[in-house]
This record gives sequence, C-alpha cells and structure tokens, in this order.
Amino acid sequence: MIRVLFAATDGRWEEYRTVLPAALAAAGLEADLSRDHAPEVVDYIVYAPNSPLQDFSPYTRAKAVLNLWAGVEDVVGNDTLKIPLCRMVDAGLTEGMVEWVTGHVLRHHLGTDAHVLGQDGVWRAGAPPLARDRRVAILGLGELGAACAAALAALNFRVSGWSNSAKAIAGVETAHGAAALPQVLAGAEILVLLLPLTPATECLLDAAALGHLPQGAVILNPGRGGLIEDAALLAALDTGQVAHATLDAFRVEPLPPGDPYWAHPQVTVTPHIASATRPGSASRAIAENIRRGEAGEPFLHVVDRARAY
Amino acid sequence: MIRVLFAATDGRWEEYRTVLPAALAAAGLEADLSRDHAPEVVDYIVYAPNSPLQDFSPYTRAKAVLNLWAGVEDVVGNDTLKIPLCRMVDAGLTEGMVEWVTGHVLRHHLGTDAHVLGQDGVWRAGAPPLARDRRVAILGLGELGAACAAALAALNFRVSGWSNSAKAIAGVETAHGAAALPQVLAGAEILVLLLPLTPATECLLDAAALGHLPQGAVILNPGRGGLIEDAALLAALDTGQVAHATLDAFRVEPLPPGDPYWAHPQVTVTPHIASATRPGSASRAIAENIRRGEAGEPFLHVVDRARAY
Repeated sequence: MIRVLFAATDGRWEEYRTVLPAALAAAGLEADLSRDHAPEVVDYIVYAPNSPLQDFSPYTRAKAVLNLWAGVEDVVGNDTLKIPLCRMVDAGLTEGMVEWVTGHVLRHHLGTDAHVLGQDGVWRAGAPPLARDRRVAILGLGELGAACAAALAALNFRVSGWSNSAKAIAGVETAHGAAALPQVLAGAEILVLLLPLTPATECLLDAAALGHLPQGAVILNPGRGGLIEDAALLAALDTGQVAHATLDAFRVEPLPPGDPYWAHPQVTVTPHIASATRPGSASRAIAENIRRGEAGEPFLHVVDRARAY
Repeated sequence: MIRVLFAATDGRWEEYRTVLPAALAAAGLEADLSRDHAPEVVDYIVYAPNSPLQDFSPYTRAKAVLNLWAGVEDVVGNDTLKIPLCRMVDAGLTEGMVEWVTGHVLRHHLGTDAHVLGQDGVWRAGAPPLARDRRVAILGLGELGAACAAALAALNFRVSGWSNSAKAIAGVETAHGAAALPQVLAGAEILVLLLPLTPATECLLDAAALGHLPQGAVILNPGRGGLIEDAALLAALDTGQVAHATLDAFRVEPLPPGDPYWAHPQVTVTPHIASATRPGSASRAIAENIRRGEAGEPFLHVVDRARAY
C-alpha cells in the first residue's frame, strides 16, 4: 500500500478527494490518499501553496513532493525539503494557458475592445493587419511558453521567444541571455510574460525594460506578478509607452480592491485563470510520477533547486 | 499584351493600381491594367461589387470575370454574364477570417467581456472550461469554414461542421443536408455562420433554427447578413435563448445608425472586417488565374452558376 499525503487546503481536497484516488487506481497503484497520515509512513506528498505543512523533516520515508501548481516559489526555498520536488506539468494547464494567451493576443491584435466597449452606432471601416504582420514576443520558453509560441506561430503571428538558455521552436525566432533581451523587447508589439519567478527574473520588467518596447506595446502577464515592477508599468501606461496591460498574475492575490490596476482604464485584470490546474488532468500527472517512483524510473519535472525552478 | 479591365470603385483602384500590375509582372505576364479599356479589347475583367459595369455583353473577347470578393451574390445573377466567373480565394482573406473567428470564439469561450467591461475591483475566481469541453459548430465548410474549423480543432475545441454537400475535415465531426441541421444546432454552444448567401440559405437562421440551439448559445456571423432573420435573432437575444451575437455582416452595410443591433447590450457589431480582402495577396490570386487563362489551364474557383456560389 502506497501512502500519499494530500497537503493542501480544504478547497483543494474537495476537488481532488475522489478524482485523484481514481487516477491512482487507473495507473495500477494500490494507494491510500489521506490528509492525516502519520509523517513517518508517508511515501509521497502532494503539495499546494498555502499548505499548513511547512516542516518536511518528519517525513523520513517520503520519496518526493509533487507540487499541484506549476510555480514552486513558495516551497523551493524551504530548507527542510531534501527530497525531489516535482513541478506540475498538467496537459490541461498547458491547454488553458494556450487558450488564454491566444485569446488575449487575438483580442489585442484584432482590436476587439473597441467593438466591445464602443458600440456607438458609428461604422468605422478598416481591417486590422494580418497576424503575419504582427510581432509577438514571449519571454520564457518552458512548457507553457513553448506551447503558446507554437500556437501563435500556427496562426501566422511573427513570434519571437526569449529564454535563459538556448531553445529551438519551429516557426519561432529564439534568443537567449540577458544581452539579447533589449532587442527582443524592441520587436514586441505584444509581449507575453511566461518566465518563472526567480531572483534573476524578479522585476525583470522594470522601467528600463519597458523603455525598450515599441511605443504602444501591449503586455500580457499570465506568468507571475513579481516579474513586473508595478509602479514602472503604471507609469508606462500613463505615458502611453505601454498601450494596454492584461494581467492574470499579481504579487498579492486576490488583487486587493484598492489596487491601482483595477481602476486603470488601460488595464484588464483576470483572476489568475490562465494557468488554473484542472483536477482531472493534474491527477493523471501525479499518478504517473508516483508510478515512476514505485517502478524506480526517474521522476518527471524535477525542480532544479540551484535555479529555483 | 493582355488587357485587364479594373471594374471597381475609386477606393479599390487606389488600393490596386500599383500592387496588381506588380503581381501581374511577377507572374511573368505582359499586361495592361486600366479602368478605361474599350470593351472589345478586354481580355479579363477584375470586378468588385458596386461596380458601374453591369452589362457584360460588349466584352466579347473577355475570357473571365475575376471577382475581388469571396461573395458573388451581387453579380452571379447577371444575365449578361456568359463567361466564367471566379470567386476570390485570397490566402490573406482566409487568414483574416481564421483570426477573426478564432479570436471571437476564444473571447466567448474565455468570457473575456466580463473582464473587459466589468473591472469593479471584485476578484471572481473560477477558470473557464477547457476548449476540449467546448462545442463549436460551423455552418458552411468552404475555403473559409474549413480553415476556421481546422484552426479551432487545433486548439482542441470540439468542432462540428455542417454543409450542403458531404465534407471531411480532420478533427471535425461533419454532417450535411437539411435533415442534419437541427442536431448540429443542438450541439452548438458557439455557432459560426460561414455559408454563402443563396436562395437556400437566405434566413436559414430563423426562429425555428434558433430554437434548436442550446439555451444561452453564442452566434458569430462573419458570413453574410442575409443568413439571419434579424427580428428572430433579436427576439432570441431578448429571451436569453441566444446569450450573445457578434456580427460582422449585415443586410445593409454600413449598418445604419438606428439599427437595433447597435443598441442591444448582447450584440457586438464589427464593421465587416473578418473577410476583408488584402490587396497584396488578392493581386497574386488574380495574377495566377490570368496566367492560367493564358496557358490554357482551367481557372481556379469558378462559380457554379446553378448553385449560385
């Protein structure tokens, strides 16, 4: 019997208490999923941010911590965590991200807001340019960024991608390293932030970086709130250097009612929906990693602690 | 020397007067493009709706009428037209249509309007379903409908397609003929109209057809205004049977300022931008058909006059 501890809040437990055991059984695993296993009997820990579990040291038998989310910044620095930490790479999460990014890129590309907000009875002729004449840049080419880049390239957008290390994606012009960033930004009519949040990416979008964008650029942030220096973005929105920001991730979530982003006419707030994990596909991903652990195969998506993602 | 008559309005002439000769030259054709050729010397007629040319009988030498638009309803019934009539199938037109349809399907799928219109400082959690759980139906599987169906299927939408004659598209469940229409409508959370306008499709979306849709369906019409019985759609919007209509094509264009569509809160009007022909790619398509005519090869996209499209 494999003992799996579910270390997450009540809301998560309601989502997973039946679907995760079903996925474990479907993977051929005899497992006991519970929130109350004694630490010394636990084989695997399924973990979500805000879990009351903060001290991993009593879990002497556990083989891995399986994160329910793609982002691991809330747990990766925990000094009591000595066993492998695996990020969630959920097919449903990737699909949801591609849908959000593609939808909002097309929204800004087509100028849809003018029609949604401005039904004033005036017929204004004039078609938008084609996607093949629209330059989109994606910062971060991990699972999510690469999938979004490929989806946008399939719609003929001129896609550039930037990442810390070199990547190759069909139909996408890629660059890497800090020295290449200003030129990537300079070509970004629409900029999509899908970098992990690390000490190296914290506030990457500061006043200097925003200044490299073409005048009137649009920013989409479905990644992490901490990638953006908020005061610098608000200033760039006020001058028109940035024409619009559509933000799905924030330093504090839920975004507080008085936050200036809510009131800014050139900002669209979405409530962290781009990268929502769906319990069905996430449970299948967790079951696969437990199956691998039991079979002596390497875990998928193990976090590199030195890079913090 | 091939003499090509440009029979369209002044605005079109300004768009095409340099780009079309360049495309003809690039196709290896020695051609003279003019608005003023004597009828008896004309080899090809490039034609747009609203052209002053309504009597084709003096054009005794002409080999084909090459329409600048995809829709041919304004010319197909002209009794003086005896030579082949070719529809515009413009790669740019198809791309623009795919972008408009994909963008507005994603907009309704993601519920983006709630965020664009409702920035009230309240964080409302909850992610939309994945595209794989969203059913989209496309009526009309010609060049444009088939391309949109394929693009939406690539984004994992559950796509059904309906057409007059049987079609097969990878990843799309197809049906054809009048008897199959109610069932296709019954599965359409989002319905896209891309049928040609013919006597058989005029007012296809009447009260009965709208009644087959699931409660709260969304309608996108980038096709032809005449496909919809406007009073029936407005009634269905008022009852909530149809939750929203995003319309790009109308019986009268520009849509008159007093039209009820402008004022309806559940209607989005876009100014016939989904299928705008782009002069560059359209010119290449025209040049290719003239090259074919001169080489004795069959024309592309000849209209079947019996079916009127």
